[in-house]
Amino acid sequence: MIGLSPEEQAFLRRARVAHLATASADGTPHVVPVCFAFDGIHLFTAIDAKPKRVPGWNLRRVKNLRENPRVSLIVDHYEEDWSRLRFALIAGRGDVVDAGTDWEHAWDLLREKYPQYQAMHDGGSGPIIRILPERAVVWQASRDWAK
Amino acid sequence: MIGLSPEEQAFLRRARVAHLATASADGTPHVVPVCFAFDGIHLFTAIDAKPKRVPGWNLRRVKNLRENPRVSLIVDHYEEDWSRLRFALIAGRGDVVDAGTDWEHAWDLLREKYPQYQAMHDGGSGPIIRILPERAVVWQASRDWAK
Repeated sequence: MIGLSPEEQAFLRRARVAHLATASADGTPHVVPVCFAFDGIHLFTAIDAKPKRVPGWNLRRVKNLRENPRVSLIVDHYEEDWSRLRFALIAGRGDVVDAGTDWEHAWDLLREKYPQYQAMHDGGSGPIIRILPERAVVWQASRDWAK
Repeated sequence: MIGLSPEEQAFLRRARVAHLATASADGTPHVVPVCFAFDGIHLFTAIDAKPKRVPGWNLRRVKNLRENPRVSLIVDHYEEDWSRLRFALIAGRGDVVDAGTDWEHAWDLLREKYPQYQAMHDGGSGPIIRILPERAVVWQASRDWAK
């Protein structure tokens, strides 16, 4: 995928949380933490699980994507030893799918990665944001970090 | 600050990393992990420490802010027990300061919170992004979480 090494792809696959930024048509950015799955081509994240109590929590990113498909997604590792900082930054485009092969595939991957979804009464029924990466930048404070 | 409770403000102050989203004038979002300090009014994050090896890593957010001051910043807590998920989401405006009282104040706070800056040969000399929150949304999966 867009030039990431196998080890860099594994870093993406392992991560339990990413941060997804979208922007409205007028350029107001919006960032949320997301659970996600990566199949080597697309990244998938569910938008209908959990936090329903904040109005607009789930809807803002969907509204933004309908106005403006561009997304920025980052997976990063933080610790107090800053020589161990690391990130993978993805720029791409996202859309919302709520049926079909990609939607089923996404839920299979998400349920496999996150047993939490299996325990939900509605686990695996919500729409999915499908992200197609166009560019990736990877960085680590020490190039020896991953060895 | 914009209606956050003392406990919610403490959650912000404690956090070691946040995620900051900006957008270019044409609405392309960009998200990065940031270390930050919060003085009860502004949030401050440095843009000139560390990752200089990726061209544009430091510059993109500055370019975006000059075109479009709107920012979205999130502090969140992730763990596998999703009943313990929590976040504070800030919408506001950011600008870059590289001298003056706020700049000195920001570096005092950052050096106090992050001893890592003290150890850097150039610690405390870079420009600062100063963020003025305009709205905050806080959410936690269980309202009992903080007790």
